[in-house]
Amino acid sequence: MESLRTRLARITHLNQAAAVLEWDMETHMPAGGAEARSQQVATLRSLAHELLVSDKTTTLLEAAGPVSELDADLIRVVRRDIEKASRVPSSLIAAMAEAAGRAKGAWQEARSTDTFSTFAPHLERIVDLCIQHAEALGYEDQPYDALLDQYEEGATTRQVSEVFEEVRSQLVPFAKEMGKTGVACEGPLHREYPEDAQWAFGLKMAERIGYDMNRGRQDVSAHPFSTSFSISDVRITTRLEKRFFNPAFFGTLHEAGHAIYEQGIDPALEGTPLADGTSLGMHESQSRMWENLVGRSLPFWEYAFPQAQEAFPAALQGVSLDDFYRAINAVSPSTIRVEADEVTYNLHIMLRFELEQQMIAGKVAVSDLPREWNDRMEAWLGVRPLNDAEGVLQDIHWSLGAIGYFPTYALGNLMSVQLFDAAYAALPDLDDHIRHGDFSALLSWLRENVHQWGRRRTASQILTASTGADVSAGPWMAYLRRKYEAMASR
Amino acid sequence: MESLRTRLARITHLNQAAAVLEWDMETHMPAGGAEARSQQVATLRSLAHELLVSDKTTTLLEAAGPVSELDADLIRVVRRDIEKASRVPSSLIAAMAEAAGRAKGAWQEARSTDTFSTFAPHLERIVDLCIQHAEALGYEDQPYDALLDQYEEGATTRQVSEVFEEVRSQLVPFAKEMGKTGVACEGPLHREYPEDAQWAFGLKMAERIGYDMNRGRQDVSAHPFSTSFSISDVRITTRLEKRFFNPAFFGTLHEAGHAIYEQGIDPALEGTPLADGTSLGMHESQSRMWENLVGRSLPFWEYAFPQAQEAFPAALQGVSLDDFYRAINAVSPSTIRVEADEVTYNLHIMLRFELEQQMIAGKVAVSDLPREWNDRMEAWLGVRPLNDAEGVLQDIHWSLGAIGYFPTYALGNLMSVQLFDAAYAALPDLDDHIRHGDFSALLSWLRENVHQWGRRRTASQILTASTGADVSAGPWMAYLRRKYEAMASR
Repeated sequence: MESLRTRLARITHLNQAAAVLEWDMETHMPAGGAEARSQQVATLRSLAHELLVSDKTTTLLEAAGPVSELDADLIRVVRRDIEKASRVPSSLIAAMAEAAGRAKGAWQEARSTDTFSTFAPHLERIVDLCIQHAEALGYEDQPYDALLDQYEEGATTRQVSEVFEEVRSQLVPFAKEMGKTGVACEGPLHREYPEDAQWAFGLKMAERIGYDMNRGRQDVSAHPFSTSFSISDVRITTRLEKRFFNPAFFGTLHEAGHAIYEQGIDPALEGTPLADGTSLGMHESQSRMWENLVGRSLPFWEYAFPQAQEAFPAALQGVSLDDFYRAINAVSPSTIRVEADEVTYNLHIMLRFELEQQMIAGKVAVSDLPREWNDRMEAWLGVRPLNDAEGVLQDIHWSLGAIGYFPTYALGNLMSVQLFDAAYAALPDLDDHIRHGDFSALLSWLRENVHQWGRRRTASQILTASTGADVSAGPWMAYLRRKYEAMASR
Repeated sequence: MESLRTRLARITHLNQAAAVLEWDMETHMPAGGAEARSQQVATLRSLAHELLVSDKTTTLLEAAGPVSELDADLIRVVRRDIEKASRVPSSLIAAMAEAAGRAKGAWQEARSTDTFSTFAPHLERIVDLCIQHAEALGYEDQPYDALLDQYEEGATTRQVSEVFEEVRSQLVPFAKEMGKTGVACEGPLHREYPEDAQWAFGLKMAERIGYDMNRGRQDVSAHPFSTSFSISDVRITTRLEKRFFNPAFFGTLHEAGHAIYEQGIDPALEGTPLADGTSLGMHESQSRMWENLVGRSLPFWEYAFPQAQEAFPAALQGVSLDDFYRAINAVSPSTIRVEADEVTYNLHIMLRFELEQQMIAGKVAVSDLPREWNDRMEAWLGVRPLNDAEGVLQDIHWSLGAIGYFPTYALGNLMSVQLFDAAYAALPDLDDHIRHGDFSALLSWLRENVHQWGRRRTASQILTASTGADVSAGPWMAYLRRKYEAMASR
């Protein structure tokens, strides 16, 4: 067991080092460093892969005698990792890396010139390779299952479709109604917010909710993200817009939510592959909980609004808490996912999920994608993209080969409410705590039920154990109705 | 050859990744990340070592057929690296790492409490392990040769002693004379220098002399350093003192000098162990050339002083170029190496070199070190440390196990003048170029004669080819006399 742990630590250290190099690439690296850096990361990832699937690792796994519960979990997860990693031929991985390298450039050009045809042949190649990838990984029901499983272990296309169908049937009319009544004016959010003050206010609140800066830090990057180099070094990035409150503030809460998850993993898992979030959906449930369920709630702003007024006097002097609360919760259907409000966001995801599935199943051709996209957008959200750049070309994911990734965003939203409801049931005074800026009880509940486990439990196991049910549509829809009805009757 | 290159690239990438992780540790890492980070770096360095000394690398080296001149250099240097790396048992490396880990903490405590006895047993252990290390590495004449060779390949104790003796016999009286006449008042350097302006002015001049910011960047760290992640990503750090011009400005020129060397290596060497400075002495010759021979010269300030006055109006208004030039060249013997002026610096090094040698040769006991240190300091520099914290405990090097490292600082100073004289002979208008802020001819000369070679040529080969002689004392002493005589007669 000791030799196995040493070997797994080496694999973990290689992957953690790769994460440091990728973080530096997005935050600090001079432009000239890009090519050598990509090669360095590729070497680290390859060595980690080779060590994982090597005969010696398998021998050590088989030789491990009677072990603790934790070690048993470790052996089980590593076996599964090896099994999956061994199924995919390295030629296919190399082909995907090469195709993605080209597709990313083509996508950038296609988006900036609004010519889908520039990207189409690359996407066709990506789809083809994803189908091969799915065949190599194997599946029970349909190829898309295998792709989904990479990001959300154990989730199936059928299960996710059913949940999404239920959401969509209620959400489309709800979003239309909300969008029509126009809950509030976003005006106060588009004023002068000095960058220094945004930085300080965002970090202050991130620390307040539980982001440990002794084991974290924040940098600037074009696309915000969170990354973990160990349980005791988990970083976030943000971006600042001078005249818009939302990106930095809600982005910081969101990334801090991811980071708080990683910081909360049981330290006994350090140096093993268990020291990671258990799925992308569960990860997103944590970022969304702090961003939306806490960060866009009235109790939170009863606590935070006076401090926000102090931090941004020019923007928020004379603005009432009520107006501010309505502004940050305004519903306004638009064509762009990353700008979507809490209500309409999931519709953007469901559109992508449906199209991904149908591409992989051979039911939608890449050439038909723009029309299929725009038709659904109009039917579900009531808006039609003016061009492909703000339609089918808006996201980078497909150009990276990441098909099966999008649904985890919506699954995370659904899980966040299921978990929050369970925390609420266990902590009846939660609103009061939040109203007084005390987030420790919620954090402890999350540590206990979600964070500490790392990959020892799957998302489904965590949800079932802590909420009594697997991922489902009802709680999220009920939460939205409660929230917006209360807002309307204020 | 192709397989060999691929394998060497992997080794290089692992070492480059370790450098990124170490850089981050000094510049950005949150305090909590230290323990996991040390383990990550250790894993990367161990894997690089294992790949280097593995049978497969040797097989590939032996199988390489007729090759280009560059590949022949590559094979020769890698063979030498492997041979050296194979001589030292890993148990000794581990013992040194452990001893150094403890010694560093003990040194910090000893220095802060001024109790040499706290550090002494750790230093005894370090000296003992260094002797074992020297025996493992092997040597012709004396054990210290083997230690010196780690940092300055091919240099011998005898050769360095002879050169240093010659310097010292002339330098001790010269420094006393200079220190007595008191060349200038340092007053103008200890005024209000706003940190932002220091940062901008230092970087502007670093870029001006040739530091390519498209392949570089600067961060803040407690102890300034330069580090290379590839030929196209070479970074520096600096530290800022609000009321002292020197640390940031001359530190930035110094580190930029190191970085310019690394940036100037032939791109064909990228991804091989040849893409590195050839020795610490040669590296220091480059940092010192830009810091002192250019950066403390009159022609440089004829160009830069008006800009400095613009950047620091509060400090430099009403100060004449002449006063400023005298201030940055003031000679003032002191007990602290890192604060030493251009004249007395080498005496600090020679003191350490002599004591290191005698410790390794068993001629000076660790317990006698403070007295031996203070006596030499008084005899050579005319000052006696008030306590061990500002005496024998001032430097970190020994606690890290780096015995044999110090002499490279003085060798670098000597080499810098030899190279500068040769450049001067080849570029008779050099003073005029510098006076007009044009450093391109000097840079080209250094690229051609020093930088491009990486580790293809040793320091001695580079010096001999470009200056006609190996490292020697005469040019440096002659330079000092010229400079200070000219200053006295102004």
